[in-house]
Amino acid sequence: MGGLIDGNLRRKIKTMSLRNLELLTYEVRDFLISRVSRTGGHLASNLGVVELTVALHRVFDVDRDRIVWDVGHQVYVHKILTGRAEGFAGLRQYGGLSGFPKTGEDAADVFNTGHGSTSISAAMGLAEARDIRGEGHHVVAVIGDGALTGGLAYEGLNNAGNRQTRMVVVLNDNEMSISESTGSVAQYLSKLRTSPAYRSAKNVLRERMARIPRVGEKVVQGAERMRNLMRYATVPGTLFEELGFSYYGPVDGHNLGELIELFEAVKHMDGPVLVHILTKKGKGYLNAERNPGRFHRVGAFDPETGAALEKKRRSWSVVAGEAMMALAERDPRVVCISAAMTKAVGLSKFAESYYNHFFDVGMAEGHAVTFAAGLAAGGLRPFVFAYSTFLQRSYDQILLDVCAQGLPVVFMVDRAGNVGRDGETHHGVFDLSYLRHMPGLVVMAPKDGAELAAMAGFAMEHGGPVAIRYPRGEAPEGGGDMVASQCAVPSGSVPIVLGRSERVIDGGGGEDVTIFAIGKMVGIAAEAAQVLEAGGGDASQGGADIRVGVVNMRFVSPIDEDAVLKAARQGAAIVTLEDNVLKGGVGEGVCALLAREGLSAPVLCIGWPDGFVPHGGVSELMGLYGLDAAGVAEKVRGFVGEGAD
Amino acid sequence: MGGLIDGNLRRKIKTMSLRNLELLTYEVRDFLISRVSRTGGHLASNLGVVELTVALHRVFDVDRDRIVWDVGHQVYVHKILTGRAEGFAGLRQYGGLSGFPKTGEDAADVFNTGHGSTSISAAMGLAEARDIRGEGHHVVAVIGDGALTGGLAYEGLNNAGNRQTRMVVVLNDNEMSISESTGSVAQYLSKLRTSPAYRSAKNVLRERMARIPRVGEKVVQGAERMRNLMRYATVPGTLFEELGFSYYGPVDGHNLGELIELFEAVKHMDGPVLVHILTKKGKGYLNAERNPGRFHRVGAFDPETGAALEKKRRSWSVVAGEAMMALAERDPRVVCISAAMTKAVGLSKFAESYYNHFFDVGMAEGHAVTFAAGLAAGGLRPFVFAYSTFLQRSYDQILLDVCAQGLPVVFMVDRAGNVGRDGETHHGVFDLSYLRHMPGLVVMAPKDGAELAAMAGFAMEHGGPVAIRYPRGEAPEGGGDMVASQCAVPSGSVPIVLGRSERVIDGGGGEDVTIFAIGKMVGIAAEAAQVLEAGGGDASQGGADIRVGVVNMRFVSPIDEDAVLKAARQGAAIVTLEDNVLKGGVGEGVCALLAREGLSAPVLCIGWPDGFVPHGGVSELMGLYGLDAAGVAEKVRGFVGEGAD
Repeated sequence: MGGLIDGNLRRKIKTMSLRNLELLTYEVRDFLISRVSRTGGHLASNLGVVELTVALHRVFDVDRDRIVWDVGHQVYVHKILTGRAEGFAGLRQYGGLSGFPKTGEDAADVFNTGHGSTSISAAMGLAEARDIRGEGHHVVAVIGDGALTGGLAYEGLNNAGNRQTRMVVVLNDNEMSISESTGSVAQYLSKLRTSPAYRSAKNVLRERMARIPRVGEKVVQGAERMRNLMRYATVPGTLFEELGFSYYGPVDGHNLGELIELFEAVKHMDGPVLVHILTKKGKGYLNAERNPGRFHRVGAFDPETGAALEKKRRSWSVVAGEAMMALAERDPRVVCISAAMTKAVGLSKFAESYYNHFFDVGMAEGHAVTFAAGLAAGGLRPFVFAYSTFLQRSYDQILLDVCAQGLPVVFMVDRAGNVGRDGETHHGVFDLSYLRHMPGLVVMAPKDGAELAAMAGFAMEHGGPVAIRYPRGEAPEGGGDMVASQCAVPSGSVPIVLGRSERVIDGGGGEDVTIFAIGKMVGIAAEAAQVLEAGGGDASQGGADIRVGVVNMRFVSPIDEDAVLKAARQGAAIVTLEDNVLKGGVGEGVCALLAREGLSAPVLCIGWPDGFVPHGGVSELMGLYGLDAAGVAEKVRGFVGEGAD
Repeated sequence: MGGLIDGNLRRKIKTMSLRNLELLTYEVRDFLISRVSRTGGHLASNLGVVELTVALHRVFDVDRDRIVWDVGHQVYVHKILTGRAEGFAGLRQYGGLSGFPKTGEDAADVFNTGHGSTSISAAMGLAEARDIRGEGHHVVAVIGDGALTGGLAYEGLNNAGNRQTRMVVVLNDNEMSISESTGSVAQYLSKLRTSPAYRSAKNVLRERMARIPRVGEKVVQGAERMRNLMRYATVPGTLFEELGFSYYGPVDGHNLGELIELFEAVKHMDGPVLVHILTKKGKGYLNAERNPGRFHRVGAFDPETGAALEKKRRSWSVVAGEAMMALAERDPRVVCISAAMTKAVGLSKFAESYYNHFFDVGMAEGHAVTFAAGLAAGGLRPFVFAYSTFLQRSYDQILLDVCAQGLPVVFMVDRAGNVGRDGETHHGVFDLSYLRHMPGLVVMAPKDGAELAAMAGFAMEHGGPVAIRYPRGEAPEGGGDMVASQCAVPSGSVPIVLGRSERVIDGGGGEDVTIFAIGKMVGIAAEAAQVLEAGGGDASQGGADIRVGVVNMRFVSPIDEDAVLKAARQGAAIVTLEDNVLKGGVGEGVCALLAREGLSAPVLCIGWPDGFVPHGGVSELMGLYGLDAAGVAEKVRGFVGEGAD
């Protein structure tokens, strides 16, 4: 590492000169670019918070004070400063450093985050706990302007402002929300930014002093009132002041000296304080400054040119976006909604071509769904695009605003199943469990790209609530081709019919095992079938051929009961295979079905166990948890072997 | 009915004189008091919106325009005015008029509500759909100040304000949120209310005109800017203006003429408008004006005195509140959080006695949970009290902020299972399905009050995330007594051990059926067992005695696997019994367990079917769905009969 970055930074930072702290920011940026270019990770947001993080670590004591990082992908600098620089070789690798705060990794990570807008509520909890326990430390929440779109952030501001909880909220405004123009608050921040441009810490502090007693706390009468209002009107921050926070800003978030001065000043203030700082995503790395979206989260890349090291094939998201273009061309009722994820879910082209039929509502999944319900009630056909893990935030809205009214809203559930390196908070392994029990909701998953497009078309025809879940990564092509896994699965030609599965491999009348697989697991089931039929693997476990049939379930709700019952009645052992936790998943549904029908076919359910899945490569995790073809084959072999005892 | 109220009001209201409209408000109030005193229902909120509803129906065309009622319990007047007065005899009765808007009931109910804070998002969807389809009607959302605490309302304001969607939001400010002092926005509204008291519609409109061009839309320089800011500062509504809404108010919400004038004026305005009106909950009925909380939702009562017609015994909520008092006395780490439901969940006394350890965060369940996670991370032991149906709103926060960090937050899930007359949107029949698959979350349900208290104590000891769900209504006492159902279940003396069930009825070694029941269904299982052992019921179905054992599961996650497997291995048929939907419920977990262990015991799962449960009496619904003792006995008899074939 060399230079100023070493394992003792945590202590050293307290006594460094401002000059050395500034040098440190350069070293940290070089370190970030060189390390993340090798491992991949969130780059632009971390480059943007270098000075902020250094200033926080200088002013606050991370071993005593509590800093909560909203979303948490901007925590790399914090990890470097707390002595974890060496771990960056293993960043986001299985068993290595997480890309998010993790309480288990270092005591300075005080609250795990991953989803946006939680930091104010969590920090308020930490602050109120401190006061109840009679402790004296400081509590800081760092939240971006994008996360401020989320209702949870507002609920936190509203509650902390009212209780006058002593805490500091740092609003890290990097114009991410405004670039997407996703809310009045974004417009409001834009006004604050542009009024007298930057303010120096001294001016900000002087202005504040002049405003005591604050307007807003009491109604002051007559001339006094008028005078206060005048002052009030000339300084920004009214919105936050109305919410009960003392507002300081906006200040230049890349001026280290100013930041330190400001944090020192607000540190000992009573009540809730909001410090508004302006930063630039990708700051100090030209490739990222020019294209912060592209460098928000990257794979390995060439640090000179910024070019990605591996080329990506067509992703499921791209297929989904193209399917929407095709649908919108045919039917003017189609509208798409994204929650601050337009590009990631493949809707960039749609947003351009059908801008009147497209809504980016910001990081506000609850609103996205209820808004969609309103659109549907108004006669349109909304498709809500969201990552599986973020859609968790609209459980209630999906259930009551959409399903209970039977409205034709389609949920395009992207990044379902294991998503790899983002880890615990980002895996979409719960959606089948939280969607499957919603009455009237059709839940499906395609085995390949062609089927995804076909399912979107089916959902359009269906005219009721539908969820289609598909994974992260590249989609097997399908559409008459073979799926792009090692084995051959004929694809897509069988039309989608409500509650009907598709046989992809016929093990013949006397098949030993039928694997009922859903979504991307169909390809893995087919591979496993090949392994098993070849009698491969451990001969001591009974290397004999096992005749395996594979069914592409297509529907998780309603499941194809006939297909399951038929296989069971023909004497096959039943295996279910899903990229979802076992609890509440499709496997349990199959067990319940067989029980209901009084069939005692042996059943093996394969999926993620009862726990949170850590970060690592997608395939790596599948392998480690026995969810790749080899693992599935082994489990099936053991299961059939048992049955034969 | 007589007088002005009849089935043709919908049309007549368009041409009535103001004098007759005012007479109508008197008739409507009398009608509400007399009808609701017989059937029970939401009274105070409806008395508060009489003039508002009459004015909306006069100015807008309910057959063409769209009015979305937030929460929806204030929709009685709307139902009367749309010609449904005759249905009030059957209000909230099974098969009768719903107490909430229902699209299936009348076309003027355009969007079903039940949970708070959805109306702005839904109305925005209706308005954007209108614009895309080139239609010209008006869209109105009516939202109370309490519901404005919810983040979803803010997400809606933020998005509609930014898009400048043409719609009217009526903020019905009845000081409900302020009385609970649950947020800065409540404080803010309080300021608006008190500044120059009421404003006349004329003054409100004149002031608005003076403010065009609006500050906020452009940055106006120099003197012009100053002048605008001065004007700006002297009129209220800044907060909403900053969110992109044109603000009109506050005006007297009981002055019909003023309301009509104002609605006529704002009706044709472009962009989003917020009309702030002040009303009084319970208006016109002194008993309710004096005690709006008591008359928020009532059973049948004497309209003269306001006294309830039936006395209530100790509810589960009261038991829960008392349990918290006992825990707090022993351990200073105990804190309780309610989301605008302090009294309903039994925490009034706790809030008084331990006010430093109590937080009412308003209608903000997401914040309640993440805030609790922060409190727990700060060393406290938070208990979050919420209705099962409202806790749905914090699915993501429970999963990631609490469970993924293993934080010791306890969820006191009140009103779980069927809640009766509030219907579809309020039944808590999904919680076992949405909580059971959360890794690390212990999910329990007590059979009686003593067990609820014991479980709260267990949760405190456990030191990790725990959810305890219990139903609406009166709790069987327990605690050495017998449960207060018709049959005798010895109670509460067996200590709570993680993952251990309790045998309540022993059918002997050769028992035919073992019923695994959870929560209040334990009492019903015991009753059913008596019926079955007596050989009662339909003799043609095999009236012979059936030897039945009953197990109180206590734990839904982790379930007592040993107890289930033991029963199955001893040859008993297994019945699961839960007050939850079957999909994703504890029954499916039992089926999966037996499948995993290769046991082919016959299993019958009893619970709510795959659908939304309508409104009706709690016992009535249990009976209709075969979930009372007789129904369960019948199902079990059929099941055992089948098995014997």
